[in-house]
Amino acid sequence: MRYAFHDQLDSIFSDLADICRQVETAVRLATEALLTGRADVAEQVISGDVQIDRARERVEDTALALLSLQAPVAGDLRTVVAALRMVSELERMGDLAVHVAKIARLRTPNLAVPEQARETMARMAAVAEDMVSRVADIIDERNVEQAEAVRKDDEEMDTLRRSTFTQLLGKEWTGGIEAAVDVALLGRYYERIADHAVAVAGRVIFVVTGAAPASS
Amino acid sequence: MRYAFHDQLDSIFSDLADICRQVETAVRLATEALLTGRADVAEQVISGDVQIDRARERVEDTALALLSLQAPVAGDLRTVVAALRMVSELERMGDLAVHVAKIARLRTPNLAVPEQARETMARMAAVAEDMVSRVADIIDERNVEQAEAVRKDDEEMDTLRRSTFTQLLGKEWTGGIEAAVDVALLGRYYERIADHAVAVAGRVIFVVTGAAPASS
Repeated sequence: MRYAFHDQLDSIFSDLADICRQVETAVRLATEALLTGRADVAEQVISGDVQIDRARERVEDTALALLSLQAPVAGDLRTVVAALRMVSELERMGDLAVHVAKIARLRTPNLAVPEQARETMARMAAVAEDMVSRVADIIDERNVEQAEAVRKDDEEMDTLRRSTFTQLLGKEWTGGIEAAVDVALLGRYYERIADHAVAVAGRVIFVVTGAAPASS
Repeated sequence: MRYAFHDQLDSIFSDLADICRQVETAVRLATEALLTGRADVAEQVISGDVQIDRARERVEDTALALLSLQAPVAGDLRTVVAALRMVSELERMGDLAVHVAKIARLRTPNLAVPEQARETMARMAAVAEDMVSRVADIIDERNVEQAEAVRKDDEEMDTLRRSTFTQLLGKEWTGGIEAAVDVALLGRYYERIADHAVAVAGRVIFVVTGAAPASS
């Protein structure tokens, strides 16, 4: 019975890592759409999100079946509940990639992000994508050390977010109001993706060590 | 045993309704800070958020204890899991009220929202606060009919959000870039509060009828 339980739990974590990789792809493609203005790539992210939603439903069903059939207690129970939270967070990260793709689609074939903000925005996107990529490995390997390291990256994200504000409120900003609003919202979406990545990593720490995760 | 279970479940839902009322207060005060520029009111929201976080922890502990000790199955299990999700969403709504309060504090004693956007923003805030208030009653009374009605309000929120964009991108906008960015982000925060309110209401529908809630 307990053997079957841990087998099924492993399978849930493997599914979570898969979903995280799907989110990574969504973030990468959304950024590509944003920086190239390609509508087809934006569409791919928007229409592909249903796959992530379905994968989330499957994990939820498996986790609920596990709770129902095995009635885990203590650490095992907390692990299953943590998995349920992780899958919600991963799905939300996918939604945020869709928000990025929708801004790209709204401005296509033009670029939403004007030249002067492009480097900072590309860096935010790269940091977010890298965090998501590493979180997939962290879930797979239950790597506490790497999970702690993800929080450090989040500090760079905060710094980058402040940089975008400095740019768009500065005297040199020639992008106008529309681009400023796009950049502010895009910054918010990437920041939220990073926040969720940190939260998911925190839940891996919790699952492995039993220590409370950082509040999401 | 089952009697004790449903007693405890009722107590969890009563706690959820209480947290929802705390969120309602946070949204109301954050809006007051925003529309009056009062820093002390903004501070009250920001420092008060820890109460909501603590209340969330208590509900989580109770729900986990219930899962652990009573090992509910089927509908009961899904109800406890729904409660865990609801409390996460309520906490997040509190965080979003803090985001509104922080923008208010950043601009104090000035007002973040310029005259021309104030009416729309005040309306968004009123719709959000009203939705949160009704969701508290919906949780208390497990009122499916009212839960369905909350979704309708969300349509008004979407319309209002589009209005703010029309205003700040229109020729008449004299608020400049900083105010446009503030208004865009504030619109996003109120919209997300409304989204979460709809999601929580959807979970009440699920708990009562067993029908899948709207995706959050």
